[in-house]
Amino acid sequence: MKIGKATVPESAICTSDDDTIVVRGADLCRDLIGKVSFVDYFWLLVTGQRPSAVASRVLDATLVAIAEHGLVPSVQASRMTMAAAPDAIQGAVAAGILGCGSVILGASETAGRLFLRVDALAKEKSLSLEAAATEVVRDLRARGEAIPGYGHPLHKARDPRVARLFEVAAEAGAPMHFVAIAEAVEKLLPDLTGRDLRLNVSAAIPAVLLDVGFPADALKGVPILARTAGLIGHLTEELARPIGFALAYQATREQRYTGELPAGVTLKTAE
Amino acid sequence: MKIGKATVPESAICTSDDDTIVVRGADLCRDLIGKVSFVDYFWLLVTGQRPSAVASRVLDATLVAIAEHGLVPSVQASRMTMAAAPDAIQGAVAAGILGCGSVILGASETAGRLFLRVDALAKEKSLSLEAAATEVVRDLRARGEAIPGYGHPLHKARDPRVARLFEVAAEAGAPMHFVAIAEAVEKLLPDLTGRDLRLNVSAAIPAVLLDVGFPADALKGVPILARTAGLIGHLTEELARPIGFALAYQATREQRYTGELPAGVTLKTAE
Amino acid sequence: MKIGKATVPESAICTSDDDTIVVRGADLCRDLIGKVSFVDYFWLLVTGQRPSAVASRVLDATLVAIAEHGLVPSVQASRMTMAAAPDAIQGAVAAGILGCGSVILGASETAGRLFLRVDALAKEKSLSLEAAATEVVRDLRARGEAIPGYGHPLHKARDPRVARLFEVAAEAGAPMHFVAIAEAVEKLLPDLTGRDLRLNVSAAIPAVLLDVGFPADALKGVPILARTAGLIGHLTEELARPIGFALAYQATREQRYTGELPAGVTLKTAE
Amino acid sequence: MKIGKATVPESAICTSDDDTIVVRGADLCRDLIGKVSFVDYFWLLVTGQRPSAVASRVLDATLVAIAEHGLVPSVQASRMTMAAAPDAIQGAVAAGILGCGSVILGASETAGRLFLRVDALAKEKSLSLEAAATEVVRDLRARGEAIPGYGHPLHKARDPRVARLFEVAAEAGAPMHFVAIAEAVEKLLPDLTGRDLRLNVSAAIPAVLLDVGFPADALKGVPILARTAGLIGHLTEELARPIGFALAYQATREQRYTGELPAGVTLKTAE
Repeated sequence: MKIGKATVPESAICTSDDDTIVVRGADLCRDLIGKVSFVDYFWLLVTGQRPSAVASRVLDATLVAIAEHGLVPSVQASRMTMAAAPDAIQGAVAAGILGCGSVILGASETAGRLFLRVDALAKEKSLSLEAAATEVVRDLRARGEAIPGYGHPLHKARDPRVARLFEVAAEAGAPMHFVAIAEAVEKLLPDLTGRDLRLNVSAAIPAVLLDVGFPADALKGVPILARTAGLIGHLTEELARPIGFALAYQATREQRYTGELPAGVTLKTAE
Repeated sequence: MKIGKATVPESAICTSDDDTIVVRGADLCRDLIGKVSFVDYFWLLVTGQRPSAVASRVLDATLVAIAEHGLVPSVQASRMTMAAAPDAIQGAVAAGILGCGSVILGASETAGRLFLRVDALAKEKSLSLEAAATEVVRDLRARGEAIPGYGHPLHKARDPRVARLFEVAAEAGAPMHFVAIAEAVEKLLPDLTGRDLRLNVSAAIPAVLLDVGFPADALKGVPILARTAGLIGHLTEELARPIGFALAYQATREQRYTGELPAGVTLKTAE
Repeated sequence: MKIGKATVPESAICTSDDDTIVVRGADLCRDLIGKVSFVDYFWLLVTGQRPSAVASRVLDATLVAIAEHGLVPSVQASRMTMAAAPDAIQGAVAAGILGCGSVILGASETAGRLFLRVDALAKEKSLSLEAAATEVVRDLRARGEAIPGYGHPLHKARDPRVARLFEVAAEAGAPMHFVAIAEAVEKLLPDLTGRDLRLNVSAAIPAVLLDVGFPADALKGVPILARTAGLIGHLTEELARPIGFALAYQATREQRYTGELPAGVTLKTAE
Repeated sequence: MKIGKATVPESAICTSDDDTIVVRGADLCRDLIGKVSFVDYFWLLVTGQRPSAVASRVLDATLVAIAEHGLVPSVQASRMTMAAAPDAIQGAVAAGILGCGSVILGASETAGRLFLRVDALAKEKSLSLEAAATEVVRDLRARGEAIPGYGHPLHKARDPRVARLFEVAAEAGAPMHFVAIAEAVEKLLPDLTGRDLRLNVSAAIPAVLLDVGFPADALKGVPILARTAGLIGHLTEELARPIGFALAYQATREQRYTGELPAGVTLKTAE
């Protein structure tokens, strides 16, 4: 059964024979292993180009910023899965990655799209960033949509990772244009939304990455790659000092059953 | 419902408050972002320690070596999933990671365990590496078990990535002890198995990583992290130039149905 | 870290003590096992109510209709994953389920929402089903959106499962109201889209299920549950007669590398 | 890259053309939809044969027995994933299925293998079931292996689902041979292990299924299929009354960070 028109698969990423593996036009063994860092290799895999020194430093910093933040829901899901299926670590990693969805980490892409939209509008209509940002935020509000990347359950003031990422980007020599857009949006939010929502790391990451030319289509891959590293740290700890079942126990210690009981049945107080 | 004894979850990886995120004893914003590379941060997350310069270089090289090798089965599964569910890239990544199982990438852990076993036996019984390797390989053979990490469907001679990884490790100043074990095993295989199985990258990786102190429990995490980077490259390409359905079409172009047909039914030649 | 307001988890589905398990107000052992069919139990789990006899027959038929359709992309991804990780069947099932996304099986929900929209508009504005359908389809077209549930890569005439499902529903005594909506939409499509797109099974399923009161929110669960059964059939076959790697080999037999080659490198013709 | 010898994919499960879909030798639309139950269809997909009436009743009962048991770890992981990625229900289902691993639900297969081993030994050496069971259990103990399917965190006495399943099987007319084996093993455990471990549902299921001819290779698929139904119930509830984040919050309310703090850093008491 054929779906869609293309029937011969093509890819520009990798080819090989017995002796040689070619990746994005370079000889893996001769030109890449031990010669480029894994982070620069990631940039190459995604874009087909080597990153500039500025881009390399910024991408590295964003991955470090987002890889670990404790026993967040996706990490709990991962550790519970490891506890239930300890001989399949790839399943536990996959379970953790499935939690990298729109609500928690997906803002990395949607905030990036927001910034690109502001940038395009400013250019198209010769507006200041503030004017363009105002128009875009108003439009999102009118359509009942949230502003992705602002506010955070724990860091009520600006997420501490934001300032540090902007600092690294500035020191590395990034243009800081999308950072300016991100900050312009932040400045508007109290007036336009009535809430003091501050930039969080999920918006800071696309801001600095767009400033160094990282493709918008791949923005969501950055927290996914980063969190994979964090998950492996947690799963290694889980093997030595398991807490997966303890997490599950604590989660439901105060659970309430709100359904009915059958006729003639009384339950002892749940453990 | 409590499973297991521990009921309060503990973790040594991360804690935070409004202003500060602490990871493995360091202040994420002050000490880590923009100061350690993502690869070194991965080492820290997994082990709780900073890597030595030697370890850092070797880990970086192993990740680059294993991240990408073309449209392998797990990448095909991932791209097919992306084609079917394009708005959930985390699902496509997860599908690709689920293919990092025992047959293809799992040898990174099992080969590592093999080398540790040879090392322990040599120390325990004061044997040469060759004698210890012989004993361990004979035992695996007697139990009908495969020797993990040797042989490869494409690279019949030694996998080209093996020599390069050993070269990087040697240049970086790694002890090369587990590399010696890996090579000792390889030398024995023709006599003990009747087949000329050469070291492949799935054994080279644990050999060099064990030589720089990477924990055996986390070995399988290395190809998983690396392949996540490769998958994101492929999924970014899939968004721009999709081949997921083309792969599925090609895969079954010559499929044969070996079941029966119901009475009275003739099928037209399948497309 | 608290996200969202509710902090005590509640559920109306199940509670238990040492001796008794209560599910949706019934005693599992006394009232359900061996007394209700698995399909009726699924209805109870999802809705909290027992299905009528009509609903039971229709749900059963939809599950049978959609569970199996050969080596489709998600089944290929699943079998490739099984081949690579044979000791973790749950990973292979998960990989197959991740392919139940918007493009292939997701229309079960979106087509259902389309029919509900036509129904609501007809009631709200006292329109005939045809008039309401025309308005909704025109609106989707104006917004550049596809009409979910119509057309199929293989079954160019009406998908044979559609007529059978409608027949089963009619014989069971279902109201056939949403079926009428689904057919009204189909009748309009040639004029409104210029293409003769016929109802496929992904639209027939929500039509008959909505007609027997199945909740729209759970529509997507029906193909997921059904395909799980199909996947287990395939994975059982994979264990006995593996084709996962053969599928992967065939998929890339004619692959083309469209990237560059490094200086000084010639590759032998790929196998 | 070819892995393994077979290069043309074959399958006995399904084939189709424009008008007809054939599954396991039957015409899906003419012979199956609305004519066989989903549970009987599952048996057909897995085995290639229609189930006997006895087998059908027993399989149905086992699926009902295992589909739902409250906010167990895999359901928590699933609901947390849904909360984080609400627009990809297939990801949340997959996350829940990944928790169907060796520790929690995998005993369905391993207990089945245990019973088959006892059965084979009894036949091979003309032993009573008790004698064969004693020999097999002693061997497992000698190798430090757990006896799969006995004991349960909540149901310290016999799991109430066990008696009911055996009752259904007996009433349906099942041979009860493997049930006798399961009970023989249970009777031995206090003496051989010093612990009063009672049969739980994960052993009762393979016992009754083996008694009606269900293939051992597919045993693990039964809890997976069943739990998919349970998961869809929970995820439907999650959409209406979300608790995913509440579960995550409760799970870590008493978490302890056991790592170090950096120099000069004091954290406010964690929320």
